[in-house]
Amino acid sequence: VLQSNIFEFAGNNNSGNWEISTIQPIIGDPLPAASFLKIQQAGIANVEKDSVWSLKGFTSNLRYAEKAEKEKLQVLHAELGKTTATLAALIPIRKNDAWWALAQDERRKIFESTSKHTETGLKYLPAIARKLYHCRDIGQPFDFLTWFEYAPAYVNQFEELVFTLRQTEEWKYIDREIDIRLKRSNFFLI
Amino acid sequence: VLQSNIFEFAGNNNSGNWEISTIQPIIGDPLPAASFLKIQQAGIANVEKDSVWSLKGFTSNLRYAEKAEKEKLQVLHAELGKTTATLAALIPIRKNDAWWALAQDERRKIFESTSKHTETGLKYLPAIARKLYHCRDIGQPFDFLTWFEYAPAYVNQFEELVFTLRQTEEWKYIDREIDIRLKRSNFFLI
Repeated sequence: VLQSNIFEFAGNNNSGNWEISTIQPIIGDPLPAASFLKIQQAGIANVEKDSVWSLKGFTSNLRYAEKAEKEKLQVLHAELGKTTATLAALIPIRKNDAWWALAQDERRKIFESTSKHTETGLKYLPAIARKLYHCRDIGQPFDFLTWFEYAPAYVNQFEELVFTLRQTEEWKYIDREIDIRLKRSNFFLI
Repeated sequence: VLQSNIFEFAGNNNSGNWEISTIQPIIGDPLPAASFLKIQQAGIANVEKDSVWSLKGFTSNLRYAEKAEKEKLQVLHAELGKTTATLAALIPIRKNDAWWALAQDERRKIFESTSKHTETGLKYLPAIARKLYHCRDIGQPFDFLTWFEYAPAYVNQFEELVFTLRQTEEWKYIDREIDIRLKRSNFFLI
């Protein structure tokens, strides 16, 4: 059976493994309030019923990392789902037309040579686990969803990571960004 | 309204804008016979009813082309749907795990420095129009679908293009390939 890499992030007011603490619009239009987040593997047409909003994205191969960076990422790889990682963030972003009109080498230059996106992420591994979902090509309101998980001890590091990325040249191409913070809702039930 | 870039290529025995001449397995498992091909924009869950097979893929940004190559592609750009282009080919391919384990710079090196994929395609523009669809991440049996359209006068050039690509180092990473040839079925009805 062929398996799609598409996942759904459904904001709703009933239930979910994660409780939403805040939904903050950083750039552009906001996203409505919701109490819980449900994450599940899904077809592009499926929408969790009773959801306030539903964001879909698919995991894929790395688009910019070169051999040396990829090897460092593999060594420092942090698994999601660690029981100590009771905090999470979901950060949907959309890049503007100017970004998407750039060629691969131009995007790579801004992404890494100038903005040090991978290098910055590596600094916080394995404390802050992250997973990237792509959504630009499947009719979604954002281009990427990034999911982060970390233990309460790393709150300051997480703020620093997000702050650092938002100062980069890459971020000038972002025309919509939402910052959703969450805590594991069933942690004591495991 | 948000628009998905996902398209469906449905092989069936009833109708379609393109009549299938041959379906030839080049590498790996074959694809069942069908008489017509219907191409339509579609959600990932939609499947054309009565189809013998249904392949989905989405258009996206260029993954390897650098600035100079992208500019050449734009200058020589060939539109699909020219009335003189009465022949077409649909070539679904899948790349093996070794390919997908490579980093961006390693893939780029094989794709262009060694195999000259873009440079070869450019040689046949604007005579042979092409469009690439991605399908690896959405639960499909292939990684890419490439669609070609050309006038009967360019049959030999098309064979040369396909032959050239199949000799490249890049093609050593392909573990399934089907070559579907078609002709416009409603050409005289326009």
